[in-house]
Amino acid sequence: LRSRYVLARTLATANVSPFAALDTFADRHLGPDNNETTYMLKKLGYDSMDAFVAATVPAHIRIPQDHVTNDTIPSLSESELIQRAKALGRENKLFKSYIGMGYHNSVVPPVILRNVMESPAWYTPYTPYQPEIAQGRLESLVNFQTMVMSLTSMDIANASLLDEATGAAEGMVMAFVASHQKKRTFFVDKHVLPQTISVLRTRAKGFGINLVVGDVLADLREEAARKDVCGVLLQYPDIDGTINDYASVVESVHASGGLVVCATDLLALTMLKPPGEWGADIVVGNSARFGVSLGYGGPHAGFFACTEKLKRKMPGRLIGRSKDATGEPAYRLALQTREQHIRREKATSNICTSQALLANMAAMYAVYHGPEGLTRIARRVHAYTQILNTAAQKYGFKPQNKEFFDTLTFDASNIPGRAHAVHAAAAAKGVNLREIDDLHVGVTLDETVGPKDIVRLVNVFAAAGPDNHDPVTWSDLEPTETLSLPSTLRRESKFLHHSVFNTHHSETEMLRYIYHLQSKDLGLVHAMIPLGSCTMKLNSTTSLMPVTWPEFSAIHPFAPIDQVKGYRQIIQELESDLCKITGFHACSLQPNSGAAGEYAGLSVIQAYHESRGEGHRNICLIPLSAHGTNPASAVMAGLKVVPVKSLPDGSLDIADLRTKAEQHKDNLAAFMITYPSTYGVFEDGVKEACDIIHQNGGQVYLDGANLNAQIGLTNPATCGGDVCHMNLHKTFSIPHGGGGPGVGPICVAEHLAPFLPTHPVVEVGGDQGIEAVSAAPFGSASILLISWAYIRMLGGTGLKKSSQLALLSANYMASRLSGHYALRYKNTNGRVAHELLIDLAEFDKSAGLKVTDFAKRIQDYGFHPPTCSWPTSTCMLIEPTESETLEELDRFCDAMIKIREEAEDVVTGKQPRDNNVLKNAPHPQAVVISDIWNRPYSRETAAYPVPWLREKKFWPTVSRIDDVYGDLNLICDCPSVEETVDAQ
Amino acid sequence: LRSRYVLARTLATANVSPFAALDTFADRHLGPDNNETTYMLKKLGYDSMDAFVAATVPAHIRIPQDHVTNDTIPSLSESELIQRAKALGRENKLFKSYIGMGYHNSVVPPVILRNVMESPAWYTPYTPYQPEIAQGRLESLVNFQTMVMSLTSMDIANASLLDEATGAAEGMVMAFVASHQKKRTFFVDKHVLPQTISVLRTRAKGFGINLVVGDVLADLREEAARKDVCGVLLQYPDIDGTINDYASVVESVHASGGLVVCATDLLALTMLKPPGEWGADIVVGNSARFGVSLGYGGPHAGFFACTEKLKRKMPGRLIGRSKDATGEPAYRLALQTREQHIRREKATSNICTSQALLANMAAMYAVYHGPEGLTRIARRVHAYTQILNTAAQKYGFKPQNKEFFDTLTFDASNIPGRAHAVHAAAAAKGVNLREIDDLHVGVTLDETVGPKDIVRLVNVFAAAGPDNHDPVTWSDLEPTETLSLPSTLRRESKFLHHSVFNTHHSETEMLRYIYHLQSKDLGLVHAMIPLGSCTMKLNSTTSLMPVTWPEFSAIHPFAPIDQVKGYRQIIQELESDLCKITGFHACSLQPNSGAAGEYAGLSVIQAYHESRGEGHRNICLIPLSAHGTNPASAVMAGLKVVPVKSLPDGSLDIADLRTKAEQHKDNLAAFMITYPSTYGVFEDGVKEACDIIHQNGGQVYLDGANLNAQIGLTNPATCGGDVCHMNLHKTFSIPHGGGGPGVGPICVAEHLAPFLPTHPVVEVGGDQGIEAVSAAPFGSASILLISWAYIRMLGGTGLKKSSQLALLSANYMASRLSGHYALRYKNTNGRVAHELLIDLAEFDKSAGLKVTDFAKRIQDYGFHPPTCSWPTSTCMLIEPTESETLEELDRFCDAMIKIREEAEDVVTGKQPRDNNVLKNAPHPQAVVISDIWNRPYSRETAAYPVPWLREKKFWPTVSRIDDVYGDLNLICDCPSVEETVDAQ
Ligand SMILES: Cc1ncc(COP(=O)(O)O)c(C=O)c1O
Ligand SMILES: Cc1ncc(COP(=O)(O)O)c(C=O)c1O
Ligand SMILES: O=C([O-])O
Repeated sequence: LRSRYVLARTLATANVSPFAALDTFADRHLGPDNNETTYMLKKLGYDSMDAFVAATVPAHIRIPQDHVTNDTIPSLSESELIQRAKALGRENKLFKSYIGMGYHNSVVPPVILRNVMESPAWYTPYTPYQPEIAQGRLESLVNFQTMVMSLTSMDIANASLLDEATGAAEGMVMAFVASHQKKRTFFVDKHVLPQTISVLRTRAKGFGINLVVGDVLADLREEAARKDVCGVLLQYPDIDGTINDYASVVESVHASGGLVVCATDLLALTMLKPPGEWGADIVVGNSARFGVSLGYGGPHAGFFACTEKLKRKMPGRLIGRSKDATGEPAYRLALQTREQHIRREKATSNICTSQALLANMAAMYAVYHGPEGLTRIARRVHAYTQILNTAAQKYGFKPQNKEFFDTLTFDASNIPGRAHAVHAAAAAKGVNLREIDDLHVGVTLDETVGPKDIVRLVNVFAAAGPDNHDPVTWSDLEPTETLSLPSTLRRESKFLHHSVFNTHHSETEMLRYIYHLQSKDLGLVHAMIPLGSCTMKLNSTTSLMPVTWPEFSAIHPFAPIDQVKGYRQIIQELESDLCKITGFHACSLQPNSGAAGEYAGLSVIQAYHESRGEGHRNICLIPLSAHGTNPASAVMAGLKVVPVKSLPDGSLDIADLRTKAEQHKDNLAAFMITYPSTYGVFEDGVKEACDIIHQNGGQVYLDGANLNAQIGLTNPATCGGDVCHMNLHKTFSIPHGGGGPGVGPICVAEHLAPFLPTHPVVEVGGDQGIEAVSAAPFGSASILLISWAYIRMLGGTGLKKSSQLALLSANYMASRLSGHYALRYKNTNGRVAHELLIDLAEFDKSAGLKVTDFAKRIQDYGFHPPTCSWPTSTCMLIEPTESETLEELDRFCDAMIKIREEAEDVVTGKQPRDNNVLKNAPHPQAVVISDIWNRPYSRETAAYPVPWLREKKFWPTVSRIDDVYGDLNLICDCPSVEETVDAQ
Repeated sequence: LRSRYVLARTLATANVSPFAALDTFADRHLGPDNNETTYMLKKLGYDSMDAFVAATVPAHIRIPQDHVTNDTIPSLSESELIQRAKALGRENKLFKSYIGMGYHNSVVPPVILRNVMESPAWYTPYTPYQPEIAQGRLESLVNFQTMVMSLTSMDIANASLLDEATGAAEGMVMAFVASHQKKRTFFVDKHVLPQTISVLRTRAKGFGINLVVGDVLADLREEAARKDVCGVLLQYPDIDGTINDYASVVESVHASGGLVVCATDLLALTMLKPPGEWGADIVVGNSARFGVSLGYGGPHAGFFACTEKLKRKMPGRLIGRSKDATGEPAYRLALQTREQHIRREKATSNICTSQALLANMAAMYAVYHGPEGLTRIARRVHAYTQILNTAAQKYGFKPQNKEFFDTLTFDASNIPGRAHAVHAAAAAKGVNLREIDDLHVGVTLDETVGPKDIVRLVNVFAAAGPDNHDPVTWSDLEPTETLSLPSTLRRESKFLHHSVFNTHHSETEMLRYIYHLQSKDLGLVHAMIPLGSCTMKLNSTTSLMPVTWPEFSAIHPFAPIDQVKGYRQIIQELESDLCKITGFHACSLQPNSGAAGEYAGLSVIQAYHESRGEGHRNICLIPLSAHGTNPASAVMAGLKVVPVKSLPDGSLDIADLRTKAEQHKDNLAAFMITYPSTYGVFEDGVKEACDIIHQNGGQVYLDGANLNAQIGLTNPATCGGDVCHMNLHKTFSIPHGGGGPGVGPICVAEHLAPFLPTHPVVEVGGDQGIEAVSAAPFGSASILLISWAYIRMLGGTGLKKSSQLALLSANYMASRLSGHYALRYKNTNGRVAHELLIDLAEFDKSAGLKVTDFAKRIQDYGFHPPTCSWPTSTCMLIEPTESETLEELDRFCDAMIKIREEAEDVVTGKQPRDNNVLKNAPHPQAVVISDIWNRPYSRETAAYPVPWLREKKFWPTVSRIDDVYGDLNLICDCPSVEETVDAQ
């Protein structure tokens, strides 16, 4: 096999015309070359790929050969793609946006842009479920949590949510749950962002919450008197820029037993009294103005903070400090979505993939600027806002804000049509303002505003009649800085005093900090990450490059449609490609994670039932093997989960399904199924199962996490689904970012298309569409470019080949590992799908070795462990993807086989059960270099169990994390200055 | 001192207006903040920076306060700089250039662009003089050497030269030297690139070589008969694209005892019989079309290969394979420029900084494409060229090439003015062709050419009359590929069969290879690199970003001047800024290294003397302490070196200087001096020394390597110089790239300005200027952007502050280290300049410990050692720069002090002389993790001598290299397939 060292790699396209482009993406994306493919097929006993696929994918769900080819989805070479992206980028107009509404321009510090955002060391790792090989981004996410806690003055903050609007929705649900789901009214101030209100409306529906939108200062008293208010949501500063003193609101809400949720702005909080100091219970927002680009709406890291009392109910991921097996301090995921999944239908939040990469960028921004730097940025933004406030009044615009930070609202009603005139003048100068209504104009400033910008802005107001004003210059303005805030609203408390925010302020030090953290994290830059269900494949540089071009990154999500023609073209092509791939009719790109897609899809199904007068349908059948997000999403969509059993061979128990479908036929809303199943097999019964559901009035939701197994071979529509989500961060190559961003669009059959999610500001979705599911109309728009590029470079033919090779690679691994490990499920031809499940239960019995022991030992071999204990607690789920070479597949199998031998020594008693290379794994440097060594195996056995580790070894940086200790001692911020000093 | 952990970092500009830009570069560039600066000043006993500078820099050479300030060199913030660069980029016109003449468009694989070219892990390390912490780029440079050897079929190749033209000049000199400097004629074929001929002319002059340019096929016989021909230079394919069979030329040259130098094109060699197979002795060229951008002329890696016989005379750096102290294979610099420097005035080449980063890119390109991929690229280029050749003939253009690869020359003389018409038609279509003369047109194709481009090109020819032709489309053309080369010219031999070129072909594998190599290399991303004389300072991301924008990277160096307005503006500003900084009158940016600057400067001085009828002046005085490039450059410029002594206190022996100046007064040409001296002190006598030279008819050349100590405080003109070079890769923040690129512009006084280097294609330089010193008119033009940005962001005030802090940091370190180490030289106030020299001689006597032992032990502490054994063999030269924080300076000093303690244990006999932590250093993982440990100190002492190494440790990857073994066994290519297989 080592023959690949001596064989020239054969390029997939070796026989094409000498005139064809040569930088064809398939040649770079696909791991196995033609020789390797032939070798693997032969090993498995097949003459051709077609024969192999025929044995793997059931015939009755196969789609015609010509459905997904370069004729239906054309293929561009890498440089052609870049040219096309450039051309489309030019069709976006780079207006300067002062629209605000939760979105701000920001200066991305170049050192962070290049070395975090654009660095595969940061964007390729997985969510840090394996803390021993993830201490770098765990530390960075703790910085994020600390930053949020410190700026908001709250007790605890999580490691990011998807955006501000869904964060507010989580806050609402938390308030509802805190009332034991008794108080059903949630009061939203009408000065909250419209996209937030829209998302709350969608979410309130599922939970049966009564959403009241009103003026919190004027109308709340009455509502509160009704004692049914579980909470209120305030925006601070509000959408118009006004900063209110909410003390009396807090008092009355608390008095009646409700919670106060506050949506806020981290930059403003450097100057404003933080919500934690005036009594907010939950604080949410968008951290993007800390060095993350607009990106036409995202991805941005939402944040979520709450009081001590509420901490165990926090949605999303929480990083905590714990210690390792040697007592050294170490970080870990303290509350995991995976743990929440265990709650399944009792969960009230489905968030899984979040926005880790963007959270890390925001945290790095705070690390780089420090409290002093952030304060200076805020004061500067405020100072410019004051100039504009003074100047606009001179031209007769009536200011509507008594107090403000960076946002101003003007009444332009003194002259008819004046608001329109302002916007026209703005457009003429390449500027976007907030179009409020016929009488009011809004402006939000940010850190990118300098003298030239403010002069241009003032002249926009000057130009909007009635008199002719000479254009002003900088010297005409009155740049006097007076802190305009009354002391009751002013922040007095210090923030970000932790040493990490006060150390790395030179670019050199910042760069070293970034590199130091990344040196602790295993990513695709090191080795394969064979996480089942996660599809950790090549994230190509070409597909990532356009994302950070200003033509795409500097666009406000609410920019007028004629400024975003390039984006719209890409979005349209992507939607169309995804429809072709899934076999469906229409697409919504709004959901920004797989879980959000599930929730959106189920809500669409519900809207469909309602439209037919069947709104009472509320039963959702879900196999026990389903991912935890499935039941959680169902609950959030207002459904009751009824589990369906599996047979011993791993396939769905069709009889059980039929029984339950018929039993609930009057109320059957939906069935959720993952295909190929989470056990990694293409089940024969999928179509039959879907028919049963349809016969009983239900709709079929197909969880598309495993779509990488299907493309060009079958599709969700053909399998019998009505709607599916895709994880673009799996199948379509958006990098996982160490825990996000993700994108989870849904495709739907024609009858569901009218119900696709809409948006309150930008026209999208179906004509009877549900309200928004994300803050931005197209979710994490800028990273859609990645999947668009991926699809357009591979083309239909390459996409299909990818799926074929994903299947082949998994089956090759299954064949190499079987005999050594118990392969749990396969189809009647002995074939798995694109992943395989091995069962380690026997080792627990024979040697006391658990799945975790194997997983941690795999780290010592320089690999990320496969998915552990899911979907079955004693198993590992292994997914290679199409991007790994035969050499890498073999290297991993060799490691697994060697570990099997190591386990055998424990089974046979050669090594003690409680003190062996598996139980003590992983072995960081400090352990194997320690002067003291009294283990029953050697240092070299610990560190170098196979020879290639001597040349290339990735090191875990801590010993095995003590989860129990971490759970008992939930500490989620950075070490304080005192702790830092003590540690030295 | 650890107080910096608890003190917020104070920003340098804390008290400026609230409206000022906040992303001021000085805040990020300067390591020490205001608190730290005050602390250091106090430690040294000064109240103010001014007082400190007054004690450090002699009063009589100080310049007025207002010379270098933000008023004379304005400061832009980081984002303002980016805006300005964008605006200037738009003033360059992105024409597609088919000009050829040694410069080709290329596709930079995005994975290499981002992860090598744009990665600080690759661009910040120093030249790999410390092989134990540089195995990554050493391996990559061996790949480069192997690639060149294999494609050219030569026995050995070096690790890059500055460009093709200087490579050819080195070849000429090698031929001359091989004749024992007896045969003085060098014959250059007239079809060689004009820039090469120009550079040869300059170089021939210094060596007294008689350069004959003629038709090698027609005229050589006669010359050869004269028996004075030491060598010939051929271009293969030649400038017009013709491929000649040079067998007879080789035969006649060899018969008369000369050498054949061939300038060639690596891509063409995948199809053409390589020069090594038809008898060339030396092969040179430009590797840039292997994935490096045009960049308006550079930087590009020149290559140089030769036969076994000539290998010990090779110029530049050569990487070889050796083994380490444990017998493991390891790479190292086998022939170093530093070693060549030991030859001093006997050297015939001065090359020091070369083009490592670009060589690595080219090597990675070959690794990524492999032999099959490269062949496909070449065949495709050739196929398109055939289409064009056929099509243009249809319109009456007469082809001039019988055989061609990618370049065609057409005779357009059938219609008067037709050549001009073609160029006009080209310009109208955004295309540049080669303007040969009134009758001929040239076209060179490259891998970026696709169907659309060829159609456009054909239509350019069609449009150039006389008849009206309908525009052709792709289908009108005749895309039949026939290999048009006769078999005598065709390559039959295999190439790049080594496993490294046949493994990393998927993007994932390529990325992992890049990351694996970089994990072995210490760069500024890890720790300070306190190399004296090298000024390893912050290389800011902002300054690097514009370099890879297409507006700057995709410009041909011979593009018409109206297409490069943006470049010209930047060049003009940079020249003007450098003149302000040096106090001189005019600047040439052409020399692309410090050594090239020295050579250019001395040649200018010689031209000046000649212009005054004093061409006989040929004596160059050079202090013994000078850098090795100084005497080598002098020799190359035709000067005789006379050394000048130093006094025991390190200062120049003025009496000796006077004696020698007077003794040689009739022939005194120049004096070369480094200031502050290479001993790290501002000598008082510099002005007096310069006066002596001037009084005796000589000119003063100031080596500006130490300019970082001077800016805004003094300058070379004020010190008395007539010309100086600057190392932009030192003082002006171009990253060192692991051994290049560099830029070494010269500034000169008014009387020398007329003699600045010219260029045969583009009008630059003085009106009596010397011929070219580099291939491109502005040398490595694209990276000039970095220094331009650096200067324009810091502004005069920031530049001056940088020099002040560089001085302060060095003096602070001197103060911390003295008492522990013998500080060799300081001024009468006890002050050093921007670097300090410590003498370790005592340890050799007392403990048998050499400088190397300390240097290798410093690696164990995670630092790059300072400059060793230069300028004094028992010393270390330490230079911190202004970019390191106090914390980092202290960390390094702490390490040095701890090593001093470790040495003391050897001095006192606690540890044996031949087996201790210093002698055995460095300690890689394999050693400290080995099951066997029988050293007189512990593993933890070896690996973790100070506690912070447990948190952050950079590991040497091999034990100490065996230099003797490497010298005896000079192996300079990658392991063969057989070796790779055996090793497994
Ligand atoms: C089967 C399945 N469904 C849904 C999800 C949730 O997707 P996301 O993490 O994008 O929210 C996952 C994620 O791993 C999954 O594996
Ligand atoms: C004092 C001095 N002069 C000249 C040079 C040569 O410069 P370059 O390496 O750029 O050719 C150096 C390089 O280290 C130097 O230190
Ligand atoms: O939690 C998961 O990413 O499956």
